[in-house]
Amino acid sequence: MSTKKKILIPEDWNLSYNSSGELRLNRFKLIDLAKKFGTPLYILNEKMLIYNSEKFRNSAARIFDRNSSVYYPFKCNSVPAVVDAVKLAGLSAEVMTEFELELALKVGFDPSEIIVNGPCKTDQFLFNCIKNNVSLIVIDSISELISLTKILDLNSSKVNLLLRVNPDFIPKGLSKSSATGSKTCSFGLNENEIIQALKIIGNYTSLKFKGLHFHIGTGIRDPGSFCKVIKKLYPLFRKIKSLGFEIEIIDVGGGFASMTTREMSSFEMLASQAISTYQLKYGNQKFYSFEDYMMKIKKAVMGFFGLRSPKIFFEPGRCIVSPAEFLLLKVYRKKIRDDKKWLITDGGLGTITMPTYYEYHEIFLCNDFKRNPKEKVTITGPCCFASDLVYKNKLLPKVNEGEILALMDTGAYFNALESSFNFNRPAIVSINGENCKVVRRRETFSDMIERDNYKNVFNRKENYHEFYNSQK
Amino acid sequence: MSTKKKILIPEDWNLSYNSSGELRLNRFKLIDLAKKFGTPLYILNEKMLIYNSEKFRNSAARIFDRNSSVYYPFKCNSVPAVVDAVKLAGLSAEVMTEFELELALKVGFDPSEIIVNGPCKTDQFLFNCIKNNVSLIVIDSISELISLTKILDLNSSKVNLLLRVNPDFIPKGLSKSSATGSKTCSFGLNENEIIQALKIIGNYTSLKFKGLHFHIGTGIRDPGSFCKVIKKLYPLFRKIKSLGFEIEIIDVGGGFASMTTREMSSFEMLASQAISTYQLKYGNQKFYSFEDYMMKIKKAVMGFFGLRSPKIFFEPGRCIVSPAEFLLLKVYRKKIRDDKKWLITDGGLGTITMPTYYEYHEIFLCNDFKRNPKEKVTITGPCCFASDLVYKNKLLPKVNEGEILALMDTGAYFNALESSFNFNRPAIVSINGENCKVVRRRETFSDMIERDNYKNVFNRKENYHEFYNSQK
Repeated sequence: MSTKKKILIPEDWNLSYNSSGELRLNRFKLIDLAKKFGTPLYILNEKMLIYNSEKFRNSAARIFDRNSSVYYPFKCNSVPAVVDAVKLAGLSAEVMTEFELELALKVGFDPSEIIVNGPCKTDQFLFNCIKNNVSLIVIDSISELISLTKILDLNSSKVNLLLRVNPDFIPKGLSKSSATGSKTCSFGLNENEIIQALKIIGNYTSLKFKGLHFHIGTGIRDPGSFCKVIKKLYPLFRKIKSLGFEIEIIDVGGGFASMTTREMSSFEMLASQAISTYQLKYGNQKFYSFEDYMMKIKKAVMGFFGLRSPKIFFEPGRCIVSPAEFLLLKVYRKKIRDDKKWLITDGGLGTITMPTYYEYHEIFLCNDFKRNPKEKVTITGPCCFASDLVYKNKLLPKVNEGEILALMDTGAYFNALESSFNFNRPAIVSINGENCKVVRRRETFSDMIERDNYKNVFNRKENYHEFYNSQK
Repeated sequence: MSTKKKILIPEDWNLSYNSSGELRLNRFKLIDLAKKFGTPLYILNEKMLIYNSEKFRNSAARIFDRNSSVYYPFKCNSVPAVVDAVKLAGLSAEVMTEFELELALKVGFDPSEIIVNGPCKTDQFLFNCIKNNVSLIVIDSISELISLTKILDLNSSKVNLLLRVNPDFIPKGLSKSSATGSKTCSFGLNENEIIQALKIIGNYTSLKFKGLHFHIGTGIRDPGSFCKVIKKLYPLFRKIKSLGFEIEIIDVGGGFASMTTREMSSFEMLASQAISTYQLKYGNQKFYSFEDYMMKIKKAVMGFFGLRSPKIFFEPGRCIVSPAEFLLLKVYRKKIRDDKKWLITDGGLGTITMPTYYEYHEIFLCNDFKRNPKEKVTITGPCCFASDLVYKNKLLPKVNEGEILALMDTGAYFNALESSFNFNRPAIVSINGENCKVVRRRETFSDMIERDNYKNVFNRKENYHEFYNSQK
């Protein structure tokens, strides 16, 4: 485990800079990319995405002697170019909706490489998962298990299951809104429900219990959290064995932090709500590798199972894709009033949504990285909303109007959550070594009204010809 | 001013119910709509939208002797069917982006009916506004005014301007994230900047100063807040007159609350973050009419200007459109664990986003309105996110899986902010009296990958043929 203190620098994202401080990704100057493709603009560092994916997979293979599988959770970033790159790097797929299943199949994942998760699988979705012979389904509730048996009564398929256990465990320091394994969350089954589920499974030959799944949160920095939660589950492992079931698989979920961002703690969330001058800092963060997490997990699993350890499933999303994307923003206006300074950018509530609200993300000035940090500024978006904030009270160099900022580590939950609030959604440009291409084009006016019945809306006399007559 | 206490009932949204408690909008049972069109489903009550719009316009005309104009801010809900209905009811348009300007022109607003606002107008947008001869532009910064003069140097057009003043005023009880007129916000110009702007305007014959704009927040219940902020501006009015400028227009902005929702206060925001059992209630809210706000505004304006009052501009969004839409959600799973109960619905983080996080919205059981409220439940969405909450600890009747809930008053900032997070975006069905039609279809898989360069992504061998060669 490495404990060196980190100061975030462009090199952490493979960026370099020339003598005038212009940031580059390989041969591409960021300011040129902004100029050519417009802002706001996402840059996908495809090489880093593939490198991170392979590194995770290779680490798991090494530490668990190939007795492991790595699944990429589509919810984190389901842009086809991202999913495709992750597949290229040899990861499997974790999906939770019809859309994600269809996308996984379309980019060429074999059904045997697909696992299914999520707290709200509809009957139609479960049916499609079975029809497509997915590798396994993670059960989140008794109700869902019963729905599944009803669907299977009409089919002859066999289904492999994991049961998602709610371990009632909150990683130390994690904000409540990021903790998914607490008993105050709806997710998963408690011990009684697990036993109830095993009884149901025992009565259905078409259902095969394969093991347990848990998920304790997102942005987890401390590898020890995984060790602790597994140890907390020892009594449950014992109980399951005593009922005659074998645990072949333990899916430890995801939530591994990106080392180049940082989640707010619950206290910081409150402080940032209450105190307008509150400034989130990266701080003296410890820096962990994928292996650091895996060693802790291995130790905890072996502590119970010894050398006959179950297969370990991982679902890394954020730690792989978050650092592999960044967002270019243009500073349109600068305001200095009384003792406050604002940079008004074109990246706002629709583009950035939640992540910078609960996470620290680094920001660089693209055209002059070396300019000294001198000003505390609040960076806002372009919307008429008081909460349209990119970052409060960030120490930056003196930035001028027209300059370009890079908001780093935007690969996780940025594209996934973006909306068309006031503005069209940004393009994504992928850079792989010396190559560069648009993998998602900027949203157009036509895109934004594509789903609207606008022939009628824009030509009112045609309106209401199609009555809805199913009711009298 | 009416001060009767309100308990929210279906009739507040023009809903009726039959003897078995099935909710209806006119002849349409809500459960039938959910069945026919699927969930989550937005229902637009077009008749109510038109009624609210006309009521606001008529109230303003009556109280201000026609010396007023009413502009609908597109940012609130820019669904073409909504904008079109508002236009039909005789309101004008307030736009802040290229998309909104294009939409306004496309649905048939005359440029003389369009005003332009927003803190981040690009040069291209300003140019298009001038080219299209919009009615007036609200200036948000000195920088923007200077940009405008540069564009006008190349044109011979004349432009009417309002200056947006930052009054440093926070309506009592309003949450910080909803207050747009505080000096801790970037919006608008302070007194020094207003004077600086007037000097610039005075030197340009193509620029015409017409008056002031302010905006103090959203979800403002107390009409007295508008009175107070106008009185706070008296010294500025005096200063402007002393410089030889006439205030022909005062734009009081928007922010008028929907009476059938309620904003959280700053304290409630903190409590809801900190205390997991915190339950937001509608409470004993006073109920105000459009006239209540207008009378207060009239009194305050006349207090300075006497009978030679400027023209008053209004920008009502939320109060008009919020009550005219609601959202149908299906309860897919119910969980009861220890002393907690959850309803897991198909409306989640992508669909509902922020509004229920800072506002009280009423929820009805569509198939049995009369069932007695008995359970405190937490209503969640379908995503694997701890923060995917529709509502915490809401007192509801005992709801069963498969039943349909109506989340009321979802016309403002729901469609505007929705994303495709994990799930496709919902359809919108419009009901106008006895007629019913789909005005926005549900998002499809094809829609979701429409902007992706998927021919290349899905067929990797074609990849990277288009190199980006502008840099060496």
